[in-house]
Amino acid sequence: MPIIVQKYGGSSVATTEKIKAIADRVLATKKQGNDVVVVVSAMGKTTNNLISLAQEISSNPNRREMDFLISTGEQVSSALLAIALQELGQDAISLTGWQAGMITENIPANARILSIHPSRVQQHLREGKVVVVTGFQGVTEFGKDGDIMTLGRGGSDTTAVALAAALKSKTCEIYTDVDGVYTTDPRMVPEARKLDKISYEAMIELAGVGAKVMHPRAVEIGSFYNVDIVVRNSHNENPGTLITKESATMEQKNRVSGIAYENEVAAISIAGVIDQPGVAAKIFSALAEVGINTDIIVQATNTSGHTDISFTIPKAEANRAKEILEKIGEEVKAEKVTVRNEIAKISIVGTGIKNHPSYAATMFKVLAEKNINIHMIGTSSIRITCVIDKEKTAEAVQLLHEAFELEKG
Amino acid sequence: MPIIVQKYGGSSVATTEKIKAIADRVLATKKQGNDVVVVVSAMGKTTNNLISLAQEISSNPNRREMDFLISTGEQVSSALLAIALQELGQDAISLTGWQAGMITENIPANARILSIHPSRVQQHLREGKVVVVTGFQGVTEFGKDGDIMTLGRGGSDTTAVALAAALKSKTCEIYTDVDGVYTTDPRMVPEARKLDKISYEAMIELAGVGAKVMHPRAVEIGSFYNVDIVVRNSHNENPGTLITKESATMEQKNRVSGIAYENEVAAISIAGVIDQPGVAAKIFSALAEVGINTDIIVQATNTSGHTDISFTIPKAEANRAKEILEKIGEEVKAEKVTVRNEIAKISIVGTGIKNHPSYAATMFKVLAEKNINIHMIGTSSIRITCVIDKEKTAEAVQLLHEAFELEKG
Repeated sequence: MPIIVQKYGGSSVATTEKIKAIADRVLATKKQGNDVVVVVSAMGKTTNNLISLAQEISSNPNRREMDFLISTGEQVSSALLAIALQELGQDAISLTGWQAGMITENIPANARILSIHPSRVQQHLREGKVVVVTGFQGVTEFGKDGDIMTLGRGGSDTTAVALAAALKSKTCEIYTDVDGVYTTDPRMVPEARKLDKISYEAMIELAGVGAKVMHPRAVEIGSFYNVDIVVRNSHNENPGTLITKESATMEQKNRVSGIAYENEVAAISIAGVIDQPGVAAKIFSALAEVGINTDIIVQATNTSGHTDISFTIPKAEANRAKEILEKIGEEVKAEKVTVRNEIAKISIVGTGIKNHPSYAATMFKVLAEKNINIHMIGTSSIRITCVIDKEKTAEAVQLLHEAFELEKG
Repeated sequence: MPIIVQKYGGSSVATTEKIKAIADRVLATKKQGNDVVVVVSAMGKTTNNLISLAQEISSNPNRREMDFLISTGEQVSSALLAIALQELGQDAISLTGWQAGMITENIPANARILSIHPSRVQQHLREGKVVVVTGFQGVTEFGKDGDIMTLGRGGSDTTAVALAAALKSKTCEIYTDVDGVYTTDPRMVPEARKLDKISYEAMIELAGVGAKVMHPRAVEIGSFYNVDIVVRNSHNENPGTLITKESATMEQKNRVSGIAYENEVAAISIAGVIDQPGVAAKIFSALAEVGINTDIIVQATNTSGHTDISFTIPKAEANRAKEILEKIGEEVKAEKVTVRNEIAKISIVGTGIKNHPSYAATMFKVLAEKNINIHMIGTSSIRITCVIDKEKTAEAVQLLHEAFELEKG
C-alpha cells in the first residue's frame, strides 16, 4: 500500500473543530487505499503561550528546558487528532518524536535530524492504523538518557519530509492556508499565479529569500531523498504545487519561477577597514558565534588599500550586530559602522536563470527605469537579489512580475 | 549528602509566581546541604483543560491517547520549575517519567509502577543539580517502544514516595495547602488538631475512608520501603505531620488518631436473594468488571433461607451500579434492589483500636445517645466505620471528636 505523509500546521489544528475537519481529510486519504502518516504542529498559539510562561520566570531561559517545555504542544495536538480519527471509527495512534524514532543532534532549539528509525511507525501502519507523529521534535538517543530536542524553524515540515524519506514514501503533502506556491505574494500582486510545479532548487532559493510557504530545510531533504512534496490548502481540494526534480517541461516554460521579497532586513556597512587577510573572517565569525545569519555580502577595495564590507541581516538582529561590530571595528581600524534599516531584498528565482545573463540585465533595467536605486546585488546560480529602499518594495515586485510575464502559465 | 524528595501539588504550581516561590523553598533545602529531587503535578487546572479538549472531540476518548495528552501537563510545570531554579543560580534539570526511569504496567489512566531505574536522576544529583521530575507518569518500557502511562489517583504522591524509595532517601516531603494531617476535617470541627505523627497503617485507613490529604497508595509504598513521609504546607515553615512506622510513643497516646467521613457515598441493598454459593461472587465480580469499588459489605441470612446483601459505593456510580444489579438480581432471584443516596460513612481510625472492643462500644453509644441511627457497620483491625444519615455527618464527627478527646495532644 502506498504511504502518504501529510503535515498540518498550527493554524490547521488551532481548534478542536479544525482538528475534526483534518480527521475527515486524513480518513478520506486512508480510504483511497493509502497508508497515512500525519505530522502535526502545535495548536495555534500554544508554542507562543508556553514561551510567555517561561519568560515570566526568566528573560533568558535555558534552551534544553525550553525544548522540554514547548515540545508538549505537538504532543497535545497529536493526541487530539488520534482521538478525532478514532471517533470516526479509524484506528489511529499518536507518537512523540522519540517514539517515532527521530534521533537528533544535541543542539536545543535548533537540532538537526541525525537518523530516523521508523520501525514502530511501520508496525502501526501494518496494523491498519493511521500514525500521528509530533512535528518539530526528536530525541538525542533512545531510552531514558535521551533528551527532547526541537528542530527550530520549519521543524514540522522537516519532520514530515524526513519521515517520508525514511518510510520510502513517494509523496509528502504539506497542508497550509494557501493553495500552493505562488509566483509572488498574492497580497502584493493580485495577478500572482499559483505554480503547478517547481523544482527543489528553485523552491529552496525562493524560500531562502522570503517565500514563507515552505522552509528551505525541508525542501533540501526532499531533494536529497527524492520525495515529491505537494503544498496544498487544508481548506479545499485544489491540487496545490508539486515540488519535485527539475524536468524538461519546466525548462521550456518561463525561466523565472517566482519573485520573493523580504522587508524585515537591515543592511550593515563597515567602511574603511584595513585590507588584509583575516579581517572578513573576524567579522563574520563574531556574528556566527552569536547565531546571526548574514546574507548578500559585498566587499569592495578602494585604491587607498581600504575596504568597505556590506551585508544584510534580519532586522531584529540589527542592534545586537551593531554592538558586536563596533567592538570589532576598533580592532580592524574601521572608519565607521553604518546600519540601514529601511531596506528590502527583492529576488527573482528560477532554474532557467542559470547561465542566462539577460535575466540580470532585465531586472536591473526594469528597476532603473522607475528610478528604483539598487544598493547591493547578490546572486546564486538560479537567483538574483537586489537590495532596494523598503518603500519601493511593492512597486518593484509588481514591475518584475509584469516584466517576466509571470501571470502567464 | 542526604537526598530529600519534595512533591508539590497542582495548586502549589498554579501560576509562574507560585512556581518562583517553590523554587525559593527548594533552593533553601538544597543550601541546607541536601540533594534535592522535586516531583511536580500539572499547573492548576491544566489537566482538566486538556480533558475538556478531548471531550470536545469524543465522549469516550481512548485511554492510551488520554495519557499521551494529559502527561504533557507535568512536563510543562517541571520545565518551568527547572527554569525558575536556574534563574536563582541553582543548576537544575527537568526529567519526564521515562527519563527518570519510571517503568509502569501497560494500563492507561491507572498504571502501577513496576520498577524505577534512577541512574539518570542520581547522575544529575552528583553533578550538583536539583532534579525536577514529572509526577503522575511513567513509561511501559525504555526506548521508542515505550508508551506513556499515567498513574491514576494519587499519582504524583506515588511518584514522589516511590522515587524516594528507589533513591534510598529517608524522607519524602509532600507539600499541600494545609499544615498536615488533622484529627478530623478542621472545616467541620474547629477544635481539630494537627497530628505531629501518625503511623503508616493509620494513615492508610484514614485516607481510605475520606481524609483527602494523602492517597493511601503512596503511603503503602512509604510503609513498604520505610520512607518517612512528611505532609507540610507549601505556604509556611510549619513542621507538618510525619507519617512513619508505629512506635511505642504513639501507643501511649490517645489510641484514636483521627476521624474521617465521606458523604459522597451510596448504599445498595439487594434483598431476598437465594442463599447459595456463588451469589455474592456474581454480584461483586459484575461490579469489579466495570471498575466500581465496593466498601463496607454486610451480609445477613434470615431463617427462610434468603439473604440480604448490602454495601456502599461512590455516589457517582450509583445509577450505573443499579442497572447492573437489576440484571443480576433477576438471575439470583432477588426480591428488590434498593439504592440509598442520603448517607455518610463516619470512621474512627487508630492503631490503638486493635483488640480494644471498648472503642467500638463507645462509638456506638455516643451515636445512639443522640439518636443517630447506624445503618451499617464495617471494621478493620484499626478502623471502625458506621454508615449513618448524611444530614447527621457534622454532628456525628463533632460528637466523636469530643468523646475520644482528640483536641488534646
